[in-house]
Amino acid sequence: MTTEARRGRPRAEGADARILDAAYEVLVDRGYDRYSIDEVAQRAGVAKTTVYRRWPTRDHLIVAVVAKIQDEVPVTDTGDIRHDLVTYLEAIVAGLDRMRRVGRAMEPGDRSAGLVAEIVAAAARHTDVGGALRGLFARRNALPLALLASARARGDLKPDAQPGVIFDELAGAIYYRLLITGEPIDGDYASRLVDQVLAGARTPHEEGT
Amino acid sequence: MTTEARRGRPRAEGADARILDAAYEVLVDRGYDRYSIDEVAQRAGVAKTTVYRRWPTRDHLIVAVVAKIQDEVPVTDTGDIRHDLVTYLEAIVAGLDRMRRVGRAMEPGDRSAGLVAEIVAAAARHTDVGGALRGLFARRNALPLALLASARARGDLKPDAQPGVIFDELAGAIYYRLLITGEPIDGDYASRLVDQVLAGARTPHEEGT
Repeated sequence: MTTEARRGRPRAEGADARILDAAYEVLVDRGYDRYSIDEVAQRAGVAKTTVYRRWPTRDHLIVAVVAKIQDEVPVTDTGDIRHDLVTYLEAIVAGLDRMRRVGRAMEPGDRSAGLVAEIVAAAARHTDVGGALRGLFARRNALPLALLASARARGDLKPDAQPGVIFDELAGAIYYRLLITGEPIDGDYASRLVDQVLAGARTPHEEGT
Repeated sequence: MTTEARRGRPRAEGADARILDAAYEVLVDRGYDRYSIDEVAQRAGVAKTTVYRRWPTRDHLIVAVVAKIQDEVPVTDTGDIRHDLVTYLEAIVAGLDRMRRVGRAMEPGDRSAGLVAEIVAAAARHTDVGGALRGLFARRNALPLALLASARARGDLKPDAQPGVIFDELAGAIYYRLLITGEPIDGDYASRLVDQVLAGARTPHEEGT
């Protein structure tokens, strides 16, 4: 039975991959508002019921598309924590920038968070979409968290450094600019952010003075 | 003419305040989806046109309500930057928690970002709402940024500490938990966050070793 199941898998995974690719394409072409599961099924060459069985709503399918995009962002531990964090955050910034443009004809200077904001709202509106999105981030963020824990273990970070809080500062700053203040996340922002987080802000107090 | 204008103002401001109070009440009672300008005008005792003249859409009015809530968050410079940041962030956390509950019957353990997420999506969808929200945050965030600049001026922060980046780390971490990961922002999170940001993460390298 396990052999049967294994044999059956590639075909099912093939359909899933085709559906996700089609969903991404339809999102790009139509935007969040006008994207439909009908069109996704048509482009993927599968029955609508095949899509619905796996992803019960549009918003569930969008979270799966986001997961796929996120899974394409590599996390590499070279042993240089500053370098690895900057590389990772720059990939996140590029991915978010692609995602905010999905399905929108962007004018120059357009600061809209686009699809990223729609996903955040969908997660807030539907308990199960929220659960799926939070699950996705928990799974993905385990990778940079492991990077930080490993840097701490080899003594590059302070023994009391808190990977969870440090990662919130880094990722949070980027999402905050994108979703809230609209300030540009340009050029060297990821480097400046990592340097500020690693170095801290407070003036060191000299012992005994 | 200026005297006339000044004389006219209190009455107009009175109507604005009544409209904003009513809008907040309607949001609390009905939630984002079912709140209407009709009901706001009725509760405020003004004509619908009075509301529309000032705030052309529901979403513009919601941004004004958010601005009012934010303006009630005090920013105090006591000279102790750690204390002032923790106090400020705790007020932000409490304000966001109230806002996410607006108009929702929350089950225990409900992690939805509620109205906060709806506002983020409204800002992404409508250029002018986005502009209004970004303007509001630019105006409000000037206060904690001044707090950080003043701590740097008196030598409590490093000369190269960047208030803009530090504030992104602090506020960003909180919005990131609320909007993206859904991780709890509980008890001492604001303190742990401020301590981590002020202290930095990297192990200090001894000179000459």
